[in-house]
Amino acid sequence: MNPPTATPAYDELASTWTRMHRLSHLQSIAGWDQAANMPPKGNEARAEAMAEMAALLHRMSTDAALRATLERAAGEPLGAPERANLREMQRDWRLANALPESLVQRLELAATRCEHAWRSQRQANDWTGFLDNFRALLSLSREEAARHADATGLGKYEAMMDRFEPGMTCARLDAIFAQVRRWLPGLVRRVLQRQAGEELIAPRGPFPVARQQQLCEQVMRRLGFDFEAGRLDVSAHPFCGGVPEDVRMTTRFREDDFLGALAGTIHETGHGRYEQNLPREWLGQPLARARSMALHESQSLAFEMQLGRHPGFVAHLAPLVSAAFGAQPAFAPQNLHRLMTRVQPGLIRVDADEVTYAAHIVLRYDIERALIEGEIEPEDIPALWDAGMQELLGLDTRGNYKDGPLQDVHWPSGMFGYFPCYSLGAMYAAQWFAAMRRATPDLDERIGRGDFAVVFDWLRTNIWSQASRWSTDELAVRASGEALNPAYLEAHLEARYLG
Amino acid sequence: MNPPTATPAYDELASTWTRMHRLSHLQSIAGWDQAANMPPKGNEARAEAMAEMAALLHRMSTDAALRATLERAAGEPLGAPERANLREMQRDWRLANALPESLVQRLELAATRCEHAWRSQRQANDWTGFLDNFRALLSLSREEAARHADATGLGKYEAMMDRFEPGMTCARLDAIFAQVRRWLPGLVRRVLQRQAGEELIAPRGPFPVARQQQLCEQVMRRLGFDFEAGRLDVSAHPFCGGVPEDVRMTTRFREDDFLGALAGTIHETGHGRYEQNLPREWLGQPLARARSMALHESQSLAFEMQLGRHPGFVAHLAPLVSAAFGAQPAFAPQNLHRLMTRVQPGLIRVDADEVTYAAHIVLRYDIERALIEGEIEPEDIPALWDAGMQELLGLDTRGNYKDGPLQDVHWPSGMFGYFPCYSLGAMYAAQWFAAMRRATPDLDERIGRGDFAVVFDWLRTNIWSQASRWSTDELAVRASGEALNPAYLEAHLEARYLG
Repeated sequence: MNPPTATPAYDELASTWTRMHRLSHLQSIAGWDQAANMPPKGNEARAEAMAEMAALLHRMSTDAALRATLERAAGEPLGAPERANLREMQRDWRLANALPESLVQRLELAATRCEHAWRSQRQANDWTGFLDNFRALLSLSREEAARHADATGLGKYEAMMDRFEPGMTCARLDAIFAQVRRWLPGLVRRVLQRQAGEELIAPRGPFPVARQQQLCEQVMRRLGFDFEAGRLDVSAHPFCGGVPEDVRMTTRFREDDFLGALAGTIHETGHGRYEQNLPREWLGQPLARARSMALHESQSLAFEMQLGRHPGFVAHLAPLVSAAFGAQPAFAPQNLHRLMTRVQPGLIRVDADEVTYAAHIVLRYDIERALIEGEIEPEDIPALWDAGMQELLGLDTRGNYKDGPLQDVHWPSGMFGYFPCYSLGAMYAAQWFAAMRRATPDLDERIGRGDFAVVFDWLRTNIWSQASRWSTDELAVRASGEALNPAYLEAHLEARYLG
Repeated sequence: MNPPTATPAYDELASTWTRMHRLSHLQSIAGWDQAANMPPKGNEARAEAMAEMAALLHRMSTDAALRATLERAAGEPLGAPERANLREMQRDWRLANALPESLVQRLELAATRCEHAWRSQRQANDWTGFLDNFRALLSLSREEAARHADATGLGKYEAMMDRFEPGMTCARLDAIFAQVRRWLPGLVRRVLQRQAGEELIAPRGPFPVARQQQLCEQVMRRLGFDFEAGRLDVSAHPFCGGVPEDVRMTTRFREDDFLGALAGTIHETGHGRYEQNLPREWLGQPLARARSMALHESQSLAFEMQLGRHPGFVAHLAPLVSAAFGAQPAFAPQNLHRLMTRVQPGLIRVDADEVTYAAHIVLRYDIERALIEGEIEPEDIPALWDAGMQELLGLDTRGNYKDGPLQDVHWPSGMFGYFPCYSLGAMYAAQWFAAMRRATPDLDERIGRGDFAVVFDWLRTNIWSQASRWSTDELAVRASGEALNPAYLEAHLEARYLG
């Protein structure tokens, strides 16, 4: 029916990817539903349905005919974006063909089971119960890692990380984290000394959940989130899911603290705006996907840390907080800013301040890398966790699994190799803001005047609209003049916390 | 891997149906989400995703190899339930193979678009805007009807109805509706005369939505709904969706009236309990599906009309209503019962009392049958609607499309042939309660004592657990001693409203 084109193989691939994109749309919505809505007895059938869909998508992306079509397309006269799109298809193909269908299906089933049970096990501090499911999941994840390593020539953990952060190697990451280990302890110490003398007024609760929800939605609007193309709901672990056309953000509320939900919401809004502003005309093709997970986290952290804790932004936030909960001395802009930039070594990663945050990642990286490489077993986690928290942040976590290794959704859902992306994201975010300041020398004054558009415009032009057009390094160079440079994060923290 | 069995063809079919069941699980959840959660800009991508899934399921159920496998299975030594399961598979196959994939996909797309636009067009009373989408949808539905008619030898409308109510013919339905037309007008007149003299105290609102939601959930629990395996949410048109393991009921609330949402909720709870109590060991196979849509409606109407408006049930409902909204003279049991059994010709089908309800169905049956048969065009609907409402219920509906032909989701979503199931369901429900009274002569006293289990046990034994084990007629005979007999509904209405 369609007229012949000069790129029949490429066109065939594009329509295959569109079909997979549409089916995975249903998977995304059902995944969000699982976390935000699903009652407990629905889990078994949902796990089976999700596994069936994962297997189906895996079959589609491992269709024997694809290899030849990909090769034919490589010889066709493609434009530059189409060539970039083909590069991403080839990557998808490599990732999918590394795993046999039965492994994909068993992984999906084991992860869904483990994650679902974890939701109550975490509440109950039930480490032993968790281990039952987790051992089975880890064993499958190790098989997954070995197969990805075979397919890519990377190390096992590196190959797992490469799924989320293509191009990042363990050698490069080790060098980056070595720098962090060098400056972090001293920085934390100096900041704690400096903040020890500051007067700080604590907010007085309770903070009714309905008011918090309203406040969060108000701030999301201020941050440009499009509620005609997305929602905010509640789940045990906040995340940003759904599809670019219909972004499903979640948060969680506590009556005795509003800052956690607010910061989490600002964080997820960064993810949400990236998704909502991916290039419309390419949606459904891999080119239109977010570049990488570190890049994704660079958006959430640009929102949560760079912009969200900027004194100019906090000055605009303060009246909204007062309007939501009634005026309090704690809500004065300067005090609110101190509350939001308070450095305090703590147990929970998602509640961590931006200075100590990297410590949580370094700890998880050490453990999950050793788990995947087979150097340790799940039984070894608590002791390593306790030792790491003691060494890095001076905290005693013995027996507290709930706020220890059970706190994050990543391991229960088999997402090994993801954690480094958070710290890489923080580094990229600092690098983006340094580039913005070079382009707009009065950036801080403009944020102080409530002109956040200057930030969004830069991100839209340099990150969101670029999607997967370039490799991560090339994107960073085009956006900021250089590839990832962790010195910007150190400089940012020095300036904000010791300046 | 599995040992050889004596029924390899049947086993292969069973596993194919399980796979389709799992994929349609995601479709069901995404369908519920579309009505209960989805923001407007998500619609286009969702429509495409749903159409892709519909096409995929259609491809699976029209796989060329299935015909031979079905034939081979028919010659295998199957037990009685397996044979019944095979009969349902054959029916699925016949239904699926009647339509080419491109038609399925275009229907799904046209229906999703039309339904989505209808949600705002209905609010805006925008009949002309609605017609734009509806014409395209109807044209595809007529093609669908013609193909089903070819495949079954039934008439076009009859073939559409047969999808929901297998075995029901237009001739039988015409005979049934002819009886209704005979007794309905006189019955309405006599009931109106009798109720004219009754004292009736109107409830005083507003009725806060949060309280209504709590009350509805309380009543659902009293009616045995399992909240560990389902939810209650809000949508423009109440429905019962999801999957048997995770039933997604919806309702809608108005601050100035609680009886509508309450009755709607009791209605959907009947659907929900049927789904939640289908035979667990057969879930995923067609045998485990609800028998037919009239049977499904017989459950919702057994709950809403037979039990829900029973004076004994209302006596137990009254204190819950008082607890929810504060005591009022209107909430005294006798007055509440009068409110709930008040007969009043009205515009809205879902708000109709059980006496005038059939008039709404007769009207829709006449119109949709003529639409599908090509005897009338969409432009003709308003005049026919006005004339029918005038004749059957003496109401003037000119220009009020919102509360006229735009009030129901069925036509905007291409569900032609469904409406008769509601009235057939009311008739079956009356027939079930007559059978229950024969089996349990003190049924009414037991309901009055709050012993609703006697009702649920009968339904579980005779309807829910039987699923699609028998043809509808056979099921009715086994449950109540005879096939559908509309005289039970007439007798029930006479007894309740004129007794």
